[in-house]
Amino acid sequence: MKRQMYQKSMDLENYATRIAVILEEFFDTQKSKVDENTPSFLSLLEVIQEFSLRGGKRIRPFFVYIGYSLIKGDISEELDEVMKASILIELIHTFFLAHDDIMDKSDLRRGKPTLHVHYEKEYKSLYGNNNLERKHFGSSMAILAGDMLFSLALDLLSDLNIKIETQKEILRVLNKTIMNTIVGQELDIRLEHKRTSFSEEILNVYKRKTAQYTFECPLHLGVLLAEGTERDLKILSEFAIPLGIAFQIRDDILGVFGKEKETGKIVGDDIYQGKQTLLIAKALEYGSDIQKDTIISILGNKNITHFDIRKIQTIIEDTGALTYAQDFSQKKIAEAKKILENIASSSQYNTQAVTQLSNVTDYIISRSI
Amino acid sequence: MKRQMYQKSMDLENYATRIAVILEEFFDTQKSKVDENTPSFLSLLEVIQEFSLRGGKRIRPFFVYIGYSLIKGDISEELDEVMKASILIELIHTFFLAHDDIMDKSDLRRGKPTLHVHYEKEYKSLYGNNNLERKHFGSSMAILAGDMLFSLALDLLSDLNIKIETQKEILRVLNKTIMNTIVGQELDIRLEHKRTSFSEEILNVYKRKTAQYTFECPLHLGVLLAEGTERDLKILSEFAIPLGIAFQIRDDILGVFGKEKETGKIVGDDIYQGKQTLLIAKALEYGSDIQKDTIISILGNKNITHFDIRKIQTIIEDTGALTYAQDFSQKKIAEAKKILENIASSSQYNTQAVTQLSNVTDYIISRSI
Repeated sequence: MKRQMYQKSMDLENYATRIAVILEEFFDTQKSKVDENTPSFLSLLEVIQEFSLRGGKRIRPFFVYIGYSLIKGDISEELDEVMKASILIELIHTFFLAHDDIMDKSDLRRGKPTLHVHYEKEYKSLYGNNNLERKHFGSSMAILAGDMLFSLALDLLSDLNIKIETQKEILRVLNKTIMNTIVGQELDIRLEHKRTSFSEEILNVYKRKTAQYTFECPLHLGVLLAEGTERDLKILSEFAIPLGIAFQIRDDILGVFGKEKETGKIVGDDIYQGKQTLLIAKALEYGSDIQKDTIISILGNKNITHFDIRKIQTIIEDTGALTYAQDFSQKKIAEAKKILENIASSSQYNTQAVTQLSNVTDYIISRSI
Repeated sequence: MKRQMYQKSMDLENYATRIAVILEEFFDTQKSKVDENTPSFLSLLEVIQEFSLRGGKRIRPFFVYIGYSLIKGDISEELDEVMKASILIELIHTFFLAHDDIMDKSDLRRGKPTLHVHYEKEYKSLYGNNNLERKHFGSSMAILAGDMLFSLALDLLSDLNIKIETQKEILRVLNKTIMNTIVGQELDIRLEHKRTSFSEEILNVYKRKTAQYTFECPLHLGVLLAEGTERDLKILSEFAIPLGIAFQIRDDILGVFGKEKETGKIVGDDIYQGKQTLLIAKALEYGSDIQKDTIISILGNKNITHFDIRKIQTIIEDTGALTYAQDFSQKKIAEAKKILENIASSSQYNTQAVTQLSNVTDYIISRSI
């Protein structure tokens, strides 16, 4: 069991290491093309490069690779171009992070300043100490940095050495996902301000912001690169959507009940942030009026205590919201695993890639409380 | 002369009217595709649609049409698809407006609230009166609306009924322009905060933010749609870049010296906004220390009086900065017109389209003080 776990994470880790090299080369090439009269462009690229290379699990590019390998196997001659193509989704992810961090008022991203905070600091050192202007400059620059990352992703796509029809399909599929993700983020922000939610709304956000974006889209890009069929796309959707939703629900449970040491998340952070999750939607649905009022008054309140977090945890448990979320997530995992069995039993898919998909699925699910 | 002027504006006006219909249809189609569980997406599309349909001269789509017609003439069977393709650049323009209005803290766009102000108002009516939260919600939503417009442009491109090779080229050229425009905007913001500039920096911004983006890129898109040659692209660059720079300089002169009634611009607004222009860069270069200090202390100061604006006007005139800018702009117009003559004398280009290009050039130049 121990050895198997190690093996699993090594695959993803190996890929992540190689992806970092490709990302670094991509930015180095971009920087080498900057004309010497525009040093601020060079500096923008350097900031974005550092931001992109801070790490992250690189699960999205890895799914591109798996999607490809399922159909074509790990063919070494094409692998370089597939790996290069797989950073497309990582650049788009970095675009979303740049803009989301502004919207979520996040100060840190992977242990370092978010882009808008980076530029706030730069403002202070270059232009002065006006607080409002500093904040405005920070978010303006992070908006531009995000826009540039979107554009850089398209530049990468334009330059990929792939069939023109494949390029067209990738643009279409990737862009549909970007639209869905934007809609999910918009809905998410609205739910936080509304301070209540229904589980249908929450599941709509999970589908768009997690299941389609992090799971389905990268697998589909891999299939497109391998010139797979509609049927391949369909079966991977049936696998990816429930797995993505289950992953998000488990992440929510960690966000409320997880131990900081084990999860790296601050206990109760989702409550402090006022996040609307399936746990909250169900607690609001099942709870008494007093329990509902308690949730609404605590959620997103910036002065909450450890005692308030305990209160919410208790309500989520007592109302049966936790059990509901756990059962729902188990059901979705079972759905995904059933499809995975179908994939595994089909002679059409590369055995090694199926094993990798199965391993990474176990890895994702193992992040449980 | 009178009749000719009328004719000129009618061409562009006619096109603008037809573009509005195509834009409206595009958004209606997008709205019809929204699934019923996501009413907030529908509402986002409606907000963006209203924003896009407020008017504007539609000069960019018109240049796409001219670029196409120069090579292929006004061929009625293909015209519908070319017009549809021409709104690509209008959607990208609307994306930039959404984000730029946040960065420039603009409240009004074409006489109505900018997107972030629209969403600030919505926040007030839906979620409450917290001032900071209201502003943050406004800019978050406008960031997302801008991102959505970028994505919608790509969606339009994906669905165009054009050759796949042409689509690939359009993506490449459009995206290079988007990158250049982002870099121009970033440089522009930095110059405003630095409070001084050199004319090389200013001309770099003008080239990126006006000449390439508003003049060169749309003409190139038209040429690509018509499957023109590298030579066609080159000659149109030689025409578009000086014309765009001249246009921007004339716009700057209007921004400082123009009469409100005639120009629709508030006199001295550029000074109030702290804009770094060629006029300012040259006045800083030519001026005495006292004149320089006066400019730096007044420019971008939100408490300036009419008297302060007069002071800046006088310095710009006395230092010779105005004369320099006028001469420079005349020189650039002469350059563009010389290329236009070459285009007109070539048998390769459609005569009617050349006349349209010549008319629209006169129209652009006629916006002078």
